[in-house]
Amino acid sequence: MIEERLGARVRVRHAVVRDAMRDRGEPEAAKVLTTDAARALDDPEVSVVVELIGGVTAARDLVLEAIARGKHVVTANKALLSAYGEEVFAAARAHGVDVYFEGAVCGGIPIIRTIREALAADRIRSIHGIVNGTTNFILSAMSDERQDYARALEKAQSLGIAEAEPTLDVSGMDAAQKLCLLASLAFRARLVPAQLHVEGITGIDPIDVEAAREFGYALKLLAVARRDGDDAIEARVGPAFIPRKAPLAEVRGAFNAVLLESAALGPSLLFGQGAGALPTGSAVVADILDVCRNVLAGISGRIPLPSGPNLLGVPVRPHTDRVGAYYLRFTVQDEPGVLGRIATVLGEQRVSIASLVQRAEPRGAEGSATIQIFTHDAREGDVRAAVARIDALASTLAPTKVIRIEHPVT
Amino acid sequence: MIEERLGARVRVRHAVVRDAMRDRGEPEAAKVLTTDAARALDDPEVSVVVELIGGVTAARDLVLEAIARGKHVVTANKALLSAYGEEVFAAARAHGVDVYFEGAVCGGIPIIRTIREALAADRIRSIHGIVNGTTNFILSAMSDERQDYARALEKAQSLGIAEAEPTLDVSGMDAAQKLCLLASLAFRARLVPAQLHVEGITGIDPIDVEAAREFGYALKLLAVARRDGDDAIEARVGPAFIPRKAPLAEVRGAFNAVLLESAALGPSLLFGQGAGALPTGSAVVADILDVCRNVLAGISGRIPLPSGPNLLGVPVRPHTDRVGAYYLRFTVQDEPGVLGRIATVLGEQRVSIASLVQRAEPRGAEGSATIQIFTHDAREGDVRAAVARIDALASTLAPTKVIRIEHPVT
Repeated sequence: MIEERLGARVRVRHAVVRDAMRDRGEPEAAKVLTTDAARALDDPEVSVVVELIGGVTAARDLVLEAIARGKHVVTANKALLSAYGEEVFAAARAHGVDVYFEGAVCGGIPIIRTIREALAADRIRSIHGIVNGTTNFILSAMSDERQDYARALEKAQSLGIAEAEPTLDVSGMDAAQKLCLLASLAFRARLVPAQLHVEGITGIDPIDVEAAREFGYALKLLAVARRDGDDAIEARVGPAFIPRKAPLAEVRGAFNAVLLESAALGPSLLFGQGAGALPTGSAVVADILDVCRNVLAGISGRIPLPSGPNLLGVPVRPHTDRVGAYYLRFTVQDEPGVLGRIATVLGEQRVSIASLVQRAEPRGAEGSATIQIFTHDAREGDVRAAVARIDALASTLAPTKVIRIEHPVT
Repeated sequence: MIEERLGARVRVRHAVVRDAMRDRGEPEAAKVLTTDAARALDDPEVSVVVELIGGVTAARDLVLEAIARGKHVVTANKALLSAYGEEVFAAARAHGVDVYFEGAVCGGIPIIRTIREALAADRIRSIHGIVNGTTNFILSAMSDERQDYARALEKAQSLGIAEAEPTLDVSGMDAAQKLCLLASLAFRARLVPAQLHVEGITGIDPIDVEAAREFGYALKLLAVARRDGDDAIEARVGPAFIPRKAPLAEVRGAFNAVLLESAALGPSLLFGQGAGALPTGSAVVADILDVCRNVLAGISGRIPLPSGPNLLGVPVRPHTDRVGAYYLRFTVQDEPGVLGRIATVLGEQRVSIASLVQRAEPRGAEGSATIQIFTHDAREGDVRAAVARIDALASTLAPTKVIRIEHPVT
């Protein structure tokens, strides 16, 4: 099928593995197995190197060496691109080779391809994504099975959906890395995770999930990037309340989804499995075909890359400039006057209350109360200032939780 | 941007229009305007003809003439492909040229591209689509604003979303034409609308929409195609109850969405605007770039086409073989024994009742009652046989409405 399509045959010359003796149940594959990466790199017949070893150090050496020898690279290694993307893409540009990495972002969802190709004639305005399956699985379990965070994380770990050391995922950093790759391509701008305001899901309490449900929202870890003009980019990752009717609200479990808004297409959404051997493998093979097509067309080295001197050096707008609605959860002493003090501080900071729920001892802590407030639109700087003042009050028992209410288009 | 990407410049040589004198506010465009299509066809410099005139007769002549002269074609004309697709694609094959038509199916959703490219390394098992924006708008209005069919259609017409003569859309035929193009590509099988069981939305009553909501479903016009093995294909278009939690249930208004299930990727969904000048225009430009890339690669004429002798000639499974659950709405005389007779017939035809609601005079018709039944899984042939028997009873006042309950994956 591939040969019919490409008009050329793609041959697997070498498969570099740790253990060439292990029986993989594929007699044909056995013929190309080797433990010696140099054999593949030295082979002048090899024009595409597919890096699927994971990790950062050996992968970087392999990829840079391949590029230096004029070989194109397909990789599904997001960690590599996050740590050394700048270097890898600069090398690719210098040597006129292609680097394709569909499998590195949202596994089987063809989001890189869509941004690069289908929208080649369009201008992308915003990206809203659920791009981390682990956190989405945990939040789905908290919502659907009313579990607390620790139990939901345990379940994700027991299913292999969360790592034993889950920080990269639950801190929001994995999502931030993916968002930077997507937004850099979509906006043709330089963007790295360090520029983003990133919050994870570790502070989420079941009563936040419950409040979301009660007020018609779903609680998701949302990656948001927006470019309104050429002056600045909005980009952030954090838990967010999104309207339950929004298509993103229905994205459950380990699935991923990305909603793009562009000038011509309007809103469009891609949804699918964010990870896994087969979805990622499918993306890798599609990338190999694209690289081959470019070779045949003599247009290698021309695909847009997510870093480089040709990209805009646009500042990221401070998250404190965001104007929107917020959910605030206060943990306070259950005594007269507390609500009044909170409301007064919010008013002084120009944060106006849309709705409010007070619950006595929702988690059994004697004498405590939880106050949940949905605000009208406010500047995030004002919200954060109000919260800092309220958290300094003697009647406040725990840091206030602030969650943005986001309205992905459609 | 296009030049940078392609490594070649795409020039617009001619823009053939009805009125070359009209001011289009584009001084550059004015230079290439002509009313003479032959000028463009005769120009040996023209390698791609973009057909956007609509209709069938003139479009067919233009496209076939372009192909005969070895020019590639980009079209957004679904009517043309439905009526003369076989001829157009055969001509393209004979002359080794490309025909791209992303804009013809679901406007701005890159579904053809996704099926052809991203899934080139995968095997598609099923397609579930909301592929007609007009009917989805009408059903959304019936559901969200509790309007009846006639009023919802009027509203769609007043907004330009439905045609004055809406039959092609509301009959389900437009969706059937699109499903055939998608399924032919996805399954590499020959499929034409005449082979499909097609039902439209004209018989939908607000109480059907209401029942869907009450029982946790959304009512959608769903296009379904499935290929389990090589022996037969399932393909049908009709109103369907789908679980409200399914991502397709949240597709509202004039939007389109297609859910693919494939061996490697698992489920994936594409969502966006199904029609409109800008979404379609964006798809057309992306197609032009693809055609140009193929020209540069010397691989024109190799893309898979949705018809041709190389496709499987697979029979479509009769819809009566479908096994699944059904919603049945009976309109009967409100008198003793009626429900018993209906239940008896259903039982005799091996159709088992999962839940049942009876409402007296729901639409004010004196002495009438509506009985709504959700069945357990049953063979559609049995359901239809039961309904035929029940409709022949003297106590049945109107033909029974049968709506499938479908479970799109995820």
